[in-house]
Amino acid sequence: MATAGEIGERALIERMLRWITPMPGMPLPFWDDAMAIDLGDGRAVVLNTDMLVWETDVPPGMTPYQAARKAVIMNFSDLGAKGVQPQGFMASLGIPRDLEVESIEEMARGFEAGAREYGGYVIGGDTNEASDIIINGVALGIARKDKIIKREGAKPGDILATTGPFGLTAASFKILLEGLEAPERLRETLAESVYNPKARIVEGIALAESGAATSSIDSSDGLSVSLYDLSRSSGVGFRIKNLPIPPEVEIYSEHHELDPGDLALYGGEEYELVFTVTPGRLEDAREALDAVGCELLELGVATRETGIVMAKNGVENPIEKRGWEHFMGA
Amino acid sequence: MATAGEIGERALIERMLRWITPMPGMPLPFWDDAMAIDLGDGRAVVLNTDMLVWETDVPPGMTPYQAARKAVIMNFSDLGAKGVQPQGFMASLGIPRDLEVESIEEMARGFEAGAREYGGYVIGGDTNEASDIIINGVALGIARKDKIIKREGAKPGDILATTGPFGLTAASFKILLEGLEAPERLRETLAESVYNPKARIVEGIALAESGAATSSIDSSDGLSVSLYDLSRSSGVGFRIKNLPIPPEVEIYSEHHELDPGDLALYGGEEYELVFTVTPGRLEDAREALDAVGCELLELGVATRETGIVMAKNGVENPIEKRGWEHFMGA
Repeated sequence: MATAGEIGERALIERMLRWITPMPGMPLPFWDDAMAIDLGDGRAVVLNTDMLVWETDVPPGMTPYQAARKAVIMNFSDLGAKGVQPQGFMASLGIPRDLEVESIEEMARGFEAGAREYGGYVIGGDTNEASDIIINGVALGIARKDKIIKREGAKPGDILATTGPFGLTAASFKILLEGLEAPERLRETLAESVYNPKARIVEGIALAESGAATSSIDSSDGLSVSLYDLSRSSGVGFRIKNLPIPPEVEIYSEHHELDPGDLALYGGEEYELVFTVTPGRLEDAREALDAVGCELLELGVATRETGIVMAKNGVENPIEKRGWEHFMGA
Repeated sequence: MATAGEIGERALIERMLRWITPMPGMPLPFWDDAMAIDLGDGRAVVLNTDMLVWETDVPPGMTPYQAARKAVIMNFSDLGAKGVQPQGFMASLGIPRDLEVESIEEMARGFEAGAREYGGYVIGGDTNEASDIIINGVALGIARKDKIIKREGAKPGDILATTGPFGLTAASFKILLEGLEAPERLRETLAESVYNPKARIVEGIALAESGAATSSIDSSDGLSVSLYDLSRSSGVGFRIKNLPIPPEVEIYSEHHELDPGDLALYGGEEYELVFTVTPGRLEDAREALDAVGCELLELGVATRETGIVMAKNGVENPIEKRGWEHFMGA
């Protein structure tokens, strides 16, 4: 009999879903960033749950405060990607008996900071005994059903765009997990992307309000995996023409003879929104993001062919489906 | 600096709450069975989250199917205690890489069974890698705000009642965890209470609809602790006159020279509702429960003095605050 590690996270979820009866009239299908329940008056409760396991998910040097704050960010980010304002956060904690109370209070402060930073509140939680620190977060918000941006909905010809450049976290993980060197200031900038991530909440809401986005996902599993997930849900492919990469990642890549494109595509734990826009509405989407201080960055275009390719100098190369997947990591 | 184990679960939650800004207009305060968010139209989303850690929470002999089903029951039960129909269940799983896929599919079947049994649906979840099996459950339902039964609200003179007798799980844990003997049929009945618990959902809703209940809690932390929690939230004490105990627990206690009252009071993982009723409305509450096939069992009366005492043969003895608390267990 196969193990979880052998089949990987996505196959595992497929196997589990075989046993599940879908709720009638779900505003969001399975395999979207978040879940939703119809309120019957044009609104829906939109929810997400995501677990942070200290041993496998928390990089060296991250404090309990930062880990707790990140548990909020990763859950809020999925709501942001749907264009939904997070209102409540619930934390379920598994903690070892010998953990210092100080660390646990630090986590409470991290939950509070993350929630308040994005206009939400910590509404409660649960504590349990465990051998490792486990932070299970739940985010929820209420939204108009017709404003929720799904993963499905991208059409061939739609513009593919994003809210920010990619690669900072992948470069940082190479330092934190593989011990690669970097000058102190560069290392700090990169580490900040891992220790203190930002969620794109106002950006997602602005896109939803504009009505210009046809699909959206957050890039927490890495850009490549996010593109594949969007492709699968919408039934389109993508031709990438531009890969926005921060100067820090370019400098770092040159120094270590790494491919900056690989860092941008195959990283993870980066919370940008990746979305598609009807071609005629691109300027509306751009203005909506501008109004909240965010530059819309074009990535490429949605295609009828379902493959995902990088187009460069007239040559198209397939982008691998590779990035962060639980149980399959190096 | 103190550790979690030294100060215990309740003190830990108090310390964490110091850092949390309460959401304005919360339909349920902190320290209630569930959390709620106001929908602004007379309704509220009512939620609960509870974690099951295999190592510390799952007794010997319990299957992955039963553990998953129980994760639903424990979360749904808290909604039932508030008089709320659970609609959705979300599961966040932490699983070791070498866990067999078969066990994980069994868990999916357990979630589905638990949810459908009580009229809810599994609406999604999340999988993560962990060194132990962790099942974090979230239950949610939508309810009219004025029908939600809180932990606060009991008045001196109110009748204290419950939906069932106590002690089966405590007796069963003595067999499963301490190796005490019992004849096979008795052992099976007792084990069933642990492996296949029931939630009092229709009973809670019936009580809420009757409008006769002034406060309510589920007894998952044990009867004694639940009485103390109800007392703390409502600012009343309780005089217990009658402790309903199943015949199996009486027989078992006699055999092992145990006090059946101790098993009933200081157990846990038993999902009865413990609630108070305005004296003049007792028959309404009784009829409401009768209509869903449940017998209302009187426990005693709420008192102005905040202590919790057992009254027997004209003598009052204090009931200890003791039962299941994380980090403090034997």
